[in-house]
Amino acid sequence: MNNISTQPFSVNGKTYTPPAKPIVVICMDGSADEYLDTTMAHDRMPNLKKMALQGYRGMVRGALPSFTNVNNSSIVTGVSPAVHGICGNFFYDTAKDQEVMMNSSEYLRAETLLAAAANAGRKVAVVTAKEKLRDILSYKLNGIAFSAEKADQAKLDTHGIENAEQVIGHKTPAIYSAEASLFVLRAGVALIENGMADFLYLSLTDYMQHTYAPDTEESLAFYEAQDAELGKMLELGAIIGATADHGMNAKVKEDGTPNVLFIETMLTEKFGNGFRVICPITDPYVKHHGALGSYVAVHMDDVSKVNEVKNWLAVQPGVTEVYDKETGCRILEQPADRTGDLFVLSARDVVVGKTAAHHDLKALDGTLRSHGGRYEEMVPLVVSHPLNATYKMKTQGDPRNFDVFDFTVNGTN
Amino acid sequence: MNNISTQPFSVNGKTYTPPAKPIVVICMDGSADEYLDTTMAHDRMPNLKKMALQGYRGMVRGALPSFTNVNNSSIVTGVSPAVHGICGNFFYDTAKDQEVMMNSSEYLRAETLLAAAANAGRKVAVVTAKEKLRDILSYKLNGIAFSAEKADQAKLDTHGIENAEQVIGHKTPAIYSAEASLFVLRAGVALIENGMADFLYLSLTDYMQHTYAPDTEESLAFYEAQDAELGKMLELGAIIGATADHGMNAKVKEDGTPNVLFIETMLTEKFGNGFRVICPITDPYVKHHGALGSYVAVHMDDVSKVNEVKNWLAVQPGVTEVYDKETGCRILEQPADRTGDLFVLSARDVVVGKTAAHHDLKALDGTLRSHGGRYEEMVPLVVSHPLNATYKMKTQGDPRNFDVFDFTVNGTN
Repeated sequence: MNNISTQPFSVNGKTYTPPAKPIVVICMDGSADEYLDTTMAHDRMPNLKKMALQGYRGMVRGALPSFTNVNNSSIVTGVSPAVHGICGNFFYDTAKDQEVMMNSSEYLRAETLLAAAANAGRKVAVVTAKEKLRDILSYKLNGIAFSAEKADQAKLDTHGIENAEQVIGHKTPAIYSAEASLFVLRAGVALIENGMADFLYLSLTDYMQHTYAPDTEESLAFYEAQDAELGKMLELGAIIGATADHGMNAKVKEDGTPNVLFIETMLTEKFGNGFRVICPITDPYVKHHGALGSYVAVHMDDVSKVNEVKNWLAVQPGVTEVYDKETGCRILEQPADRTGDLFVLSARDVVVGKTAAHHDLKALDGTLRSHGGRYEEMVPLVVSHPLNATYKMKTQGDPRNFDVFDFTVNGTN
Repeated sequence: MNNISTQPFSVNGKTYTPPAKPIVVICMDGSADEYLDTTMAHDRMPNLKKMALQGYRGMVRGALPSFTNVNNSSIVTGVSPAVHGICGNFFYDTAKDQEVMMNSSEYLRAETLLAAAANAGRKVAVVTAKEKLRDILSYKLNGIAFSAEKADQAKLDTHGIENAEQVIGHKTPAIYSAEASLFVLRAGVALIENGMADFLYLSLTDYMQHTYAPDTEESLAFYEAQDAELGKMLELGAIIGATADHGMNAKVKEDGTPNVLFIETMLTEKFGNGFRVICPITDPYVKHHGALGSYVAVHMDDVSKVNEVKNWLAVQPGVTEVYDKETGCRILEQPADRTGDLFVLSARDVVVGKTAAHHDLKALDGTLRSHGGRYEEMVPLVVSHPLNATYKMKTQGDPRNFDVFDFTVNGTN
């Protein structure tokens, strides 16, 4: 714990003045506030409760679309997708006529505060559950960066760590498991304990939230196990800021079956060919959501019809918001060159997809819980230490989940 | 507690089959979930915690605009404003060229389930903090209906009760106080205790939430005192369903001053005269919010400009949603004949008003916390008893705050 650098650093217009204590920011993937509420009501998150009591707990607004890599990119840069450029897992590159995957730092348009902290002398570690996030989060980082998914493949020269399983004392977990997230938190504890890191970003995965509602024993036990790791970090003197990338809602009809609007099919039936619907939630991991979220982008061959199509979509049941490019880019804070001609968001209980053939509903684990839209935008923020007057004031108004490093680093001294 | 009627009754397309226990539905006015979170973290709501543990706690979607009388009307009818017609405190009657106050049951277009319960043999009582709600809530009701505000004026032939202060054991409270809401809950306890009511609707007021953030001692003590009354009702064997009409957010800039867009001024400056902005939050009680909320309706002399004005408003900072009549009526579930040509909703930290001259910011109690928009739409639902399988399923998807009677009456047997 000695020699922790307190040198200020600036990135993307904000200055961070870190205290001489381990800083841990956790992205509790998919943690709608209800998960915390329910587990706390069962007295199974004593450490989070202590954090809320001694520090701060409130709601913050995430970045849209309410997806994992969009919000992780925002959290580590401190800026919106309009600035950092990562607006989903996929976008359609109109110039190249290609659907392009964005899980790579080459698409990131802003520096990360993790890299800046490392340059200012902090021992930085990024641990993420899914390998897909590692490249973006470790952009230009001089430090440790590895995923739970491929912990056993981490090497000193490429990941800043070797023998990760031994260091952490746990085997590389299966990605579709509670263990995948718990491994990330346990790694955080081990890295602080061993003096290997004093500025950490721990990014969990939401397989459990996609699969289990808050009041199931599986979910309660999962959050209880997370809480135990929070306790260990607090014991080690860490200042913890925890938030989520997005919430999570059941997207089902009254009978429990998936509630899906296939937007490309709807548009083709109504207006004929010439539409390309991009589902930016699509990624190689589809078991938990079938590539169905509450947000899609629509590209149109004939953009002269934008208003007509927008007005028609806006009155379809289950659709809650439709924007053209100008309004959508402002309201949803999107980078104009990586988005469609129309943005479509759906209701709390509705997901939007492309066509039935594009989504394998049978791959789902029994239910459909997902995110991506407005009803998964608000997420909790918990900071372990009392906020100073300036940051207490900042909790009023419109604090964002991607202010979490700002609150944790600058708000607690 | 004897002879409680279990006769089913139907209203607005839904059938209610009440159990032989006191049914208490509480509208905790302005109770954003954060108020419950924070007070529970301080262990100062043991009874609400017990309810959440033994029964259910989750989030439900309120009616828009997220105002008090809109949602109270929805709760007692079980339907949206599109059906019951109460879409604010005020509307502009274009035919009569008049701004009309809607705090009267003559504007209610749906029967209430309170009146239906009374007709089915239940002893119904409505207690509301503010007198303004009494007329709507007691529409066609054969039972008790009075307000905390004018409890000392309640008479047997007009209010179904006399000597209310003696029955309840408390004096008529000041309306701008915690006591105004606590009196309502205490009245509920007394009415059950004395066998005067077995089907109650208790509607609180949000002066405290407009004035105090969740982590202030004033707020904590207020919720703790509410909880004590919940405990007494549970002791008396009541089944309790608690929800809120709307959430509450600080509508301030970084320096704590009110964050207001005067929409009529903006439109007049940009497009010239011919606009009438209606702030449907306006009512005789303005001390706590200055008639500023996150929703206004815009009437236009020249409706041919609707699209032009809509598109301009949609890109103004602080404005988050703008709808024309057709889309707005669908998305916001509004009655077309009582709304404007455009609907405008503002951000989590922004309120919309008419012109500076129309709003007395000096009347505010030191800060501006308000509601009316999308960011005050989601509210908690707590039911004291375990939900049956059918209603457990209904918590998935898109449950509404105005399903609270349905959940409490039909969901717990």
